[in-house]
Amino acid sequence: MDLECASQETVKQGLLARGWPPIKGFSKHVKTKVFEFFSHLIKLGQDDPRRVVHSLKAGLALTLVSLFYYYQPLYKSFGVSAMWAVITVVVVFEFSVGATLGKGVNRGLATLLAGGLAVGAHQLANLSGRIGEPIVLGFFVFLQAAVSTFVRFCPQIKARYDYGLLIFILTFSLISISGFRDDEVLELVHKRLLTVLIGGLTCVIISVLLFPVWAGQDLHNLIASNMEKLGIFLEGFGDEYFKMPEDGESKEDRPFLQGYKSVLDSKTNEDALANFARWEPRHGRFQFRHPWKQYLKIGALTRKCAYRIESLNGHLYADIQAKREIRSKIQETCTTISMESGKALKELSMAIKTMVQPFAADIHIENSKSSVKNLDTLLKSGLWDDETDLLEVVPVATVASLLIDVVTCTAEIAESVNELATMLKFEVVEPTVSPEKTETGQPKIGIS
Amino acid sequence: MDLECASQETVKQGLLARGWPPIKGFSKHVKTKVFEFFSHLIKLGQDDPRRVVHSLKAGLALTLVSLFYYYQPLYKSFGVSAMWAVITVVVVFEFSVGATLGKGVNRGLATLLAGGLAVGAHQLANLSGRIGEPIVLGFFVFLQAAVSTFVRFCPQIKARYDYGLLIFILTFSLISISGFRDDEVLELVHKRLLTVLIGGLTCVIISVLLFPVWAGQDLHNLIASNMEKLGIFLEGFGDEYFKMPEDGESKEDRPFLQGYKSVLDSKTNEDALANFARWEPRHGRFQFRHPWKQYLKIGALTRKCAYRIESLNGHLYADIQAKREIRSKIQETCTTISMESGKALKELSMAIKTMVQPFAADIHIENSKSSVKNLDTLLKSGLWDDETDLLEVVPVATVASLLIDVVTCTAEIAESVNELATMLKFEVVEPTVSPEKTETGQPKIGIS
Repeated sequence: MDLECASQETVKQGLLARGWPPIKGFSKHVKTKVFEFFSHLIKLGQDDPRRVVHSLKAGLALTLVSLFYYYQPLYKSFGVSAMWAVITVVVVFEFSVGATLGKGVNRGLATLLAGGLAVGAHQLANLSGRIGEPIVLGFFVFLQAAVSTFVRFCPQIKARYDYGLLIFILTFSLISISGFRDDEVLELVHKRLLTVLIGGLTCVIISVLLFPVWAGQDLHNLIASNMEKLGIFLEGFGDEYFKMPEDGESKEDRPFLQGYKSVLDSKTNEDALANFARWEPRHGRFQFRHPWKQYLKIGALTRKCAYRIESLNGHLYADIQAKREIRSKIQETCTTISMESGKALKELSMAIKTMVQPFAADIHIENSKSSVKNLDTLLKSGLWDDETDLLEVVPVATVASLLIDVVTCTAEIAESVNELATMLKFEVVEPTVSPEKTETGQPKIGIS
Repeated sequence: MDLECASQETVKQGLLARGWPPIKGFSKHVKTKVFEFFSHLIKLGQDDPRRVVHSLKAGLALTLVSLFYYYQPLYKSFGVSAMWAVITVVVVFEFSVGATLGKGVNRGLATLLAGGLAVGAHQLANLSGRIGEPIVLGFFVFLQAAVSTFVRFCPQIKARYDYGLLIFILTFSLISISGFRDDEVLELVHKRLLTVLIGGLTCVIISVLLFPVWAGQDLHNLIASNMEKLGIFLEGFGDEYFKMPEDGESKEDRPFLQGYKSVLDSKTNEDALANFARWEPRHGRFQFRHPWKQYLKIGALTRKCAYRIESLNGHLYADIQAKREIRSKIQETCTTISMESGKALKELSMAIKTMVQPFAADIHIENSKSSVKNLDTLLKSGLWDDETDLLEVVPVATVASLLIDVVTCTAEIAESVNELATMLKFEVVEPTVSPEKTETGQPKIGIS
């Protein structure tokens, strides 16, 4: 036996010795991965320090409700039910106040409703005798689970009450089934409701009082910053497009020209934030029934504009570009259109951020519209008579046409921002840009 | 007293009598709302009958695990812990197999890991004496909750392990805290793990065996149908655009021209389905490590094409449309480009659906590319000499240019579908459309 063991040992050592370099390589790989993971985590914290604060808040909330277990007097009154307070905190505590409140209210109401119905189901099952009872209860459990699961498919209900329906199924099942064993169903319901309430309140209080994160404020900022991103692209587009490629630099390096891409896919985020925001009470400049729908409308129009910009962006990097002479003819007007729409969007973004009437934006929109008129005149004037090769005109014409679309989109966005300004009675501050000093050097023309 | 009661009764009746018409109106309003809600539910079921089946499956799974409570022998071995099986079923049972498996595996592994760590924490706390114990436990609970909550912000982890981290926090807290009261921590962990396993297995078995809904199959179909929607738009676009508005009908009525809109916002849905699909075992034509990333790549290219189509769609309803003569000059070529790209997309969609090599699509793409060359020749040929008003050319030039972009996008989509075809070894079937019989009547030209 000893010999056998010894020989096995040798084989093992041999394997280890042979396996060493791959193991070394593997451990190096793991080290790199772990290092990458940690530097990624640090970046997450730096990008939005509220994430760090939220994590500490979650830890605090959980430690607070765990006091139920540690202190004899509290534990005596709740016993094992104290578990529900802990579960509630883990599940309900979310990043924003709105999400926490929504989940808390859903959980509380669903527990109350399901508890009540489960007691009713329990009484009804009691009437059907020893053998009938589990059958009746089983039927009720099946029925409510199937119906509630189906109702969760309804998009409007899913958006606001999905979690409530889940808790409804859970509570109804647990209480009606437990009730079969435990005759003190009412006490069970009472304890569960109370512990859920305590857990929920702990979450809501910590969420609201300690460095609150408001989903409404986030939606407000997201809408404004999306608009700003489009504005930044448009302000830079004219110069980038008309600059000749032989200038040496690669256009793909410009991060400010790529910022708009996140706007294309922002719908889900906006919808989620609006759903959370609806649960939030009055905070700062936001009321309880703040017109969040108007924000979604502005968001949709901003995305529509972003789709046009995506097409424009394609022309920045297109292989076949129009000849220098052709481009230079409309360079000034197109640059002005792009620049003025960009400024308008940035002004609108600033107006939302500061909640001030967007007067300056109207001026920039008028400027861009008058430049569109100039472009029309330029195109009509027959400046192009000497040019017969339309093939080289097409890219420029497309860019011009897309820019005209962008002006239309910008005007639509401005209109909906103005609607928002009326709804929320934005502050009136005189514009700092006077009409006489616009970049085009032209007087402000009233084009609607 | 009696008199007082009677007078109160009269007041109440008076109020009721006065309140009657509004109440009547309100009840009518409620009736309408309830009716609307039910017809909406019926429509949800008709749109996708799998929803009805899923609801019945959820009811069945819940009724099955509730047997724990009803039957004495089963109840004896688990006691109140049987509750965890019920909770697991309610929370883990999802629409698709992938989502159910993902949640089940997350819940199982997280319970195992958190249980193990909680036992360790419990032992460590035991060493620190009667007073130190709650402090040490409190510290551990705080630490793990804060760290896990923070890690949940990491997008890659959130996508696949978010639920696991939630259950980790939950289980660690519950077991380490309960352990403070209950010295049989190991038994608690064992029971919880076993009941979670039973609940999870019930879900997975029912989900896989009874009319399974595969997220992978859904993603596969979604990608194909999105492509088809763009194809339908493009096939119809040429005729719609070049048809004169005086033909009487409103263009806005065409539902086939609006189908593409859902493609613009499909990113979230695609990402979620791909995340679920990664958990799914081999089923039908899909393996365990199916190249879902390639599907997402195709999806992204399809969306890029949809952005161009959104710009094209704007031109369908534009107020200023180009003159009839100008449009008629490029009508045939543009219609062919649009038609052929549409056909190519529909062929590619069909190729994905049937998992057959997309030969026919390549032919349509070559046709559209040769039409683009024709368009170039047409524009170069000086056909336009008599036309000096470029203003009227701009819309047509833009549409032509966007169509050329669409051809580029379509070629990119075709390339990525071909990559998928190579990865999955799509079946080789000879194309039914012969190159000699293309719609343009031109021979197939090899343009890359």
